[in-house]
Amino acid sequence: MLKTETLTRIKWDANGLIAAIVQDANTQQVLMMAYMNTEALQKTLEISETVFWSRSRSELWHKGATSGNTQKVREIRIDCDADTLLILVEPAGPACHTGEVSCFYRTLSEFESE
Amino acid sequence: MLKTETLTRIKWDANGLIAAIVQDANTQQVLMMAYMNTEALQKTLEISETVFWSRSRSELWHKGATSGNTQKVREIRIDCDADTLLILVEPAGPACHTGEVSCFYRTLSEFESE
Repeated sequence: MLKTETLTRIKWDANGLIAAIVQDANTQQVLMMAYMNTEALQKTLEISETVFWSRSRSELWHKGATSGNTQKVREIRIDCDADTLLILVEPAGPACHTGEVSCFYRTLSEFESE
Repeated sequence: MLKTETLTRIKWDANGLIAAIVQDANTQQVLMMAYMNTEALQKTLEISETVFWSRSRSELWHKGATSGNTQKVREIRIDCDADTLLILVEPAGPACHTGEVSCFYRTLSEFESE
């Protein structure tokens, strides 16, 4: 658990969220980006698996709770201005709901051609 | 330049921005995260160096224009729901204004101990 003083030093956005980049600790592949509120971050620290705040469903989202594709947290880093997290994980399966290993499975050119 | 139709398919946020994660194409290190509007993204494609939208200064920000620490763009990827970019770059110098290679130079534990 983070101290309250630490939580106040993190630069949450206007919606009380912080962006969290998820990177595979072994392959270094960037897997996804999602958002955390204080509760999601504390829960992530507590269970050592990623827990986000789902902006679409407005609820805590324990990644992989239903799919089994959890992400074991190896390290959490924070950037210079304390408004973005980098979470290094060992994924139990694909990060993307499409079944792709990473949500970044397309180049911008491929996206344009779709 | 991206086609207008492609620009409308990108999920810009309420402020007309998209988050852009910057990763070193060679070392795979995540260097920073910043934001782009349509103009920043088109300029990035035009000059093959990262150009962001500075939220604090409300102006286009050609990374490294003054410091020399430009980032040559090797590839731009977009995620499944088209609301985050992953930019693979060859950096000419440190990404962080502190002089660190990456803005994510601290663990969350180190941040808490500061």
